[in-house]
Amino acid sequence: MTSRYFVQTHFILSKGIQYLVGALLLAFCSFCFATDSLPSWNDAATKQQIESFVKRVTTSGSPDFVEPAKRIAVFDNDGTLWAEQPIYSEFFFVLDQVKAQSPKHPEWKTTEPFKSALSGDMKGLAAAGEKGAAELMAATHAGMTSVEFARQVSQWAATARHPRTHRVFTEMVYQPMLELLRYLRDNGFKTFIVSGGGQDFMRAWATPVYGIPPEQIIGSQGELKFEMQDGKPVLLKLPNVALIDDGPGKPVGIERAIGRKPILAFGNSDGDQQMLEWTASGDGARFAGLVHHTDAEREWAYDRQSKVGKLDKALDEATAKGWTVVDMKKDWKVIYPSEKQ
Amino acid sequence: MTSRYFVQTHFILSKGIQYLVGALLLAFCSFCFATDSLPSWNDAATKQQIESFVKRVTTSGSPDFVEPAKRIAVFDNDGTLWAEQPIYSEFFFVLDQVKAQSPKHPEWKTTEPFKSALSGDMKGLAAAGEKGAAELMAATHAGMTSVEFARQVSQWAATARHPRTHRVFTEMVYQPMLELLRYLRDNGFKTFIVSGGGQDFMRAWATPVYGIPPEQIIGSQGELKFEMQDGKPVLLKLPNVALIDDGPGKPVGIERAIGRKPILAFGNSDGDQQMLEWTASGDGARFAGLVHHTDAEREWAYDRQSKVGKLDKALDEATAKGWTVVDMKKDWKVIYPSEKQ
Repeated sequence: MTSRYFVQTHFILSKGIQYLVGALLLAFCSFCFATDSLPSWNDAATKQQIESFVKRVTTSGSPDFVEPAKRIAVFDNDGTLWAEQPIYSEFFFVLDQVKAQSPKHPEWKTTEPFKSALSGDMKGLAAAGEKGAAELMAATHAGMTSVEFARQVSQWAATARHPRTHRVFTEMVYQPMLELLRYLRDNGFKTFIVSGGGQDFMRAWATPVYGIPPEQIIGSQGELKFEMQDGKPVLLKLPNVALIDDGPGKPVGIERAIGRKPILAFGNSDGDQQMLEWTASGDGARFAGLVHHTDAEREWAYDRQSKVGKLDKALDEATAKGWTVVDMKKDWKVIYPSEKQ
Repeated sequence: MTSRYFVQTHFILSKGIQYLVGALLLAFCSFCFATDSLPSWNDAATKQQIESFVKRVTTSGSPDFVEPAKRIAVFDNDGTLWAEQPIYSEFFFVLDQVKAQSPKHPEWKTTEPFKSALSGDMKGLAAAGEKGAAELMAATHAGMTSVEFARQVSQWAATARHPRTHRVFTEMVYQPMLELLRYLRDNGFKTFIVSGGGQDFMRAWATPVYGIPPEQIIGSQGELKFEMQDGKPVLLKLPNVALIDDGPGKPVGIERAIGRKPILAFGNSDGDQQMLEWTASGDGARFAGLVHHTDAEREWAYDRQSKVGKLDKALDEATAKGWTVVDMKKDWKVIYPSEKQ
């Protein structure tokens, strides 16, 4: 063996060993993923239903196999991915924005619904009804450019805190659902948010929190107007509603933005019922899931009588049709990322 | 050397050689890609401008580097990705659908604009104006479920032929633009269609043709209504317009569907002007391109005076701002995929 040949052989050998070690590590890591993908879920029926569904649609040759491009998964946001009590977090943003803008609007001190919003009078706000809510939305979600609105939301999301937990709102997302989102993506799914909440509101903070890009975040939308300001094009947010992405509006939002029927959907309230029906109605294997808030101690317990996130008809349909119902208290080891062990 | 050791060594050696050969092939193929990514484009200034832009935004450490998630590229469809003369292809679909449905509508024989549509009387159709066009659109794009409409379009796209070339319409896409779409995707771009044409119409045929999934195809949209038919959920297409994705509507469509400002946009007419302005107004390196139809022999030659795909103001702005203008006759070696060498 000449020295040169030895060096070449040694080089090839060491490359070969690198290759083998790499392959072994890869196999080992796949094994880790397979066992640890949902560590915050208790080993109960719910977790098994999720894993069994994912296995069926991703196993090549399985009768339920779905090609990756069609593995569309949709998730409601409020009450499904993050907390929604005592009121939707976006409503806290609205109240905070009314306060922040009030110096420019002295008339708000004496005009409803702004008067109640400024004093935190929830009864007064309730009395202002849908008309009052629309006025508050118009005052805080319109009249500025899309860029300016995103800046306002980002600033709020980085600083505002929930009145009960004193956490910033983006820390009140559900750790088990973060794991589920990642688990689905690791299995070739494309994950979307389909929420009744404001699309522009969510897009301003949700991408790093959920790992979902803005083009996969669908929500309620206002009209936009393209115009030139000082020679630069802007999109002005108008108060007119373009889509209420809730209830029967969710399948509409899905069709407009995605154009494919999802194979998996997760919600938590009657506002998600039509999205779940739409998803479940497709051919082949389909997964329809509900998060049932059963944990008064670690989160909140509410369903049929709740004013926020009411779960009544959809719970009946889930029972009748065998949809998966997550029992938060029994199924989840932890609620928020900060509780992770 | 024992026999077992020899076998192991041989195994490792052969794996090592496989690894090396693989690495060499990969390096070789990258080289092929780098030189051959736009083979149907002549080696002129336009091609260089495209390649130079892509290099700048994808080179790590470059001051113009853009992370992959933000490499959004948007393309108009009619006249940019496929032919649009003598009228938009979707209008041929409308005329064919009116004929196909006429047995169920005997009154159409004597009522405008249907009478002119049935007899192919273009002057009569022109006289019916926008109101007539809206009636034809409502009759052919609404009143059925989303699934039924997609089936009608697919059937049409597979069989209908262009009156001049006698090709099916999906063969009248531009080979150089197909290469550009793929080249961008190979460089980490996410490619979108943003067209004035019907979103549901395009989604029914465009995915295999352009390699773009339905959720990245944005177009003009009608309202949808979720309802139950025989116990199954459907989306009914309504005649009301939800978005005219043309002119100032294009940045609106982009914001609603993508939520990020593109870094590259390609159009061919004044209907793309605002999309190009919106794209060009972002910080950092931006690419705004126009396809100029200059080839009367191989395709069509038209711009400022054309009734379809009028290119007038946007051409002036392109000149003033240094946008890239593709001269179809000079820049493209071939027009359609069938002419590929």
